[in-house]
Amino acid sequence: MKTALPLITLAILAACQTAAPPPAAQPESVAMDPSAPAITEIKPSAGEQWLLGSAEARIVMVQSWNEIASYVEKQAASRPNASVILAPGATPDAPEFLACGDKPLAAVFDADETLIWNTGSTGAYRRMGKEYDPITWGEWERTGAGKAVAIPGALDGVARIRAAGVEVIVNTNREAANVEGNIATLAQAGFGEFVHGSTLFLKGDTPGGSAKDARRYAISENYCVVALVGDQLGDIADIFNDKTLRPAERRSLSAASAFDSLWGQGWFILPNPLYGPSIAGSMDDIFPAETYWEPASKD
Amino acid sequence: MKTALPLITLAILAACQTAAPPPAAQPESVAMDPSAPAITEIKPSAGEQWLLGSAEARIVMVQSWNEIASYVEKQAASRPNASVILAPGATPDAPEFLACGDKPLAAVFDADETLIWNTGSTGAYRRMGKEYDPITWGEWERTGAGKAVAIPGALDGVARIRAAGVEVIVNTNREAANVEGNIATLAQAGFGEFVHGSTLFLKGDTPGGSAKDARRYAISENYCVVALVGDQLGDIADIFNDKTLRPAERRSLSAASAFDSLWGQGWFILPNPLYGPSIAGSMDDIFPAETYWEPASKD
Repeated sequence: MKTALPLITLAILAACQTAAPPPAAQPESVAMDPSAPAITEIKPSAGEQWLLGSAEARIVMVQSWNEIASYVEKQAASRPNASVILAPGATPDAPEFLACGDKPLAAVFDADETLIWNTGSTGAYRRMGKEYDPITWGEWERTGAGKAVAIPGALDGVARIRAAGVEVIVNTNREAANVEGNIATLAQAGFGEFVHGSTLFLKGDTPGGSAKDARRYAISENYCVVALVGDQLGDIADIFNDKTLRPAERRSLSAASAFDSLWGQGWFILPNPLYGPSIAGSMDDIFPAETYWEPASKD
Repeated sequence: MKTALPLITLAILAACQTAAPPPAAQPESVAMDPSAPAITEIKPSAGEQWLLGSAEARIVMVQSWNEIASYVEKQAASRPNASVILAPGATPDAPEFLACGDKPLAAVFDADETLIWNTGSTGAYRRMGKEYDPITWGEWERTGAGKAVAIPGALDGVARIRAAGVEVIVNTNREAANVEGNIATLAQAGFGEFVHGSTLFLKGDTPGGSAKDARRYAISENYCVVALVGDQLGDIADIFNDKTLRPAERRSLSAASAFDSLWGQGWFILPNPLYGPSIAGSMDDIFPAETYWEPASKD
């Protein structure tokens, strides 16, 4: 520790030291089985370090939430008469949006990695050396309340949006069967009490599984939606979720002229480099031929 | 491929198919050495897939660049008389900024993962199964022009900033010794011709190695800097680069009240989940004790 650090830094350090150390992150199987391979240190992935740990990600999130709240405040003041929800059958060539009439305004948010970070389950998967599995995830939905944290900037952003008279509605692929745990998770992260079928829409509420358009239409029966916010394109419109699209095709579709002006103007994406349909692509997809380079001298 | 895809999607697909397939991503050593272990498929990391390949990252970048350009345009219209560069000796308790006088306005950008993505070198490291090494990186600085790409939104953002009469200046830790390659890399990515010592500042231009404050002061001799943009806190101020800070302390320092209102208002961070001082932290840092959770039934 440098001696020149200002007092506020010392105060920060003191605050950090109040947390008790967490349980050791060593899998039991290693300790119990002497024939097991040498213990390798369990480490967070680079993406986990960046998203959940870095000052940089905190700042990106605060910047983004400020922009979302400012946009919604402006919309609340100007009272648009068309929503940002694509109408059924809309295409890039015929991008129609739902009409609003005089319905009250709402902003619709995904939950996971949009309002909350799933720090508890992400750490558990890492300690177990597992990727996502539905059994563990279901248990997380039911029992994780208090172990998921509000994303930096989200509580302020949601408060500003509500203060502007705009309803905050959650449209998540958490399961309707786990409704109590999901409501408790959002409440304990500080977002207040959502009401299933009114301000909270879950997988199973409408046909189509994880596709969210049907729930967006249900929300639109009562609200004029002025903002859609998520970490994946499926939080915006099902048209982006065609699983046959390669990454470059998906990027191009999101950049179609009918859609591109919406990003940051009603449609908002927050960074999540950990999981989801955004995490896809072969070497050829991610490092395309026109950028191929190799050093002359390889070790 | 679904038959219902609209014409524009087909046009996108056709455009994607014009690129020739890249060279095979299989290391030579595997082919040449029959005793080598079984070939494991080389895959991009999740962070690489997200940042360089996903529609979501493209959108986050476009959103961010729009905000940066809009902010600089507003500053150009209002002509501030203080810069966003912290004065020497500034602390969170005494956050003083450089004065501007009537100097012309400038916006200062990091290069790597701020203006450009280093797609060529990132792919090369992945194919070689290596992390960053200085020999390869030096060669990349000298020969990578044309294989680094403009970040989505950056070319438009830089054009808007220049159109507002604000000078675009690059402050990067690429080496002064490789100045020609670095100028060529930025030019071939579409950003125009930067001039060393005038609009381009490199490592080695001032004492302090990779610390950028000295270069920020040099820039400020001629310009009033209204925006600082990067992917790491060191692109904003050296005060954040204290290597003794744990991730939570670094986050807290960036959130000190004197600094927090600057993010998105003169200080801007773009997401980079791949490398840098933002990628740090143990299991205890990233998954703090208060979020500890484990499932009752582990497989």
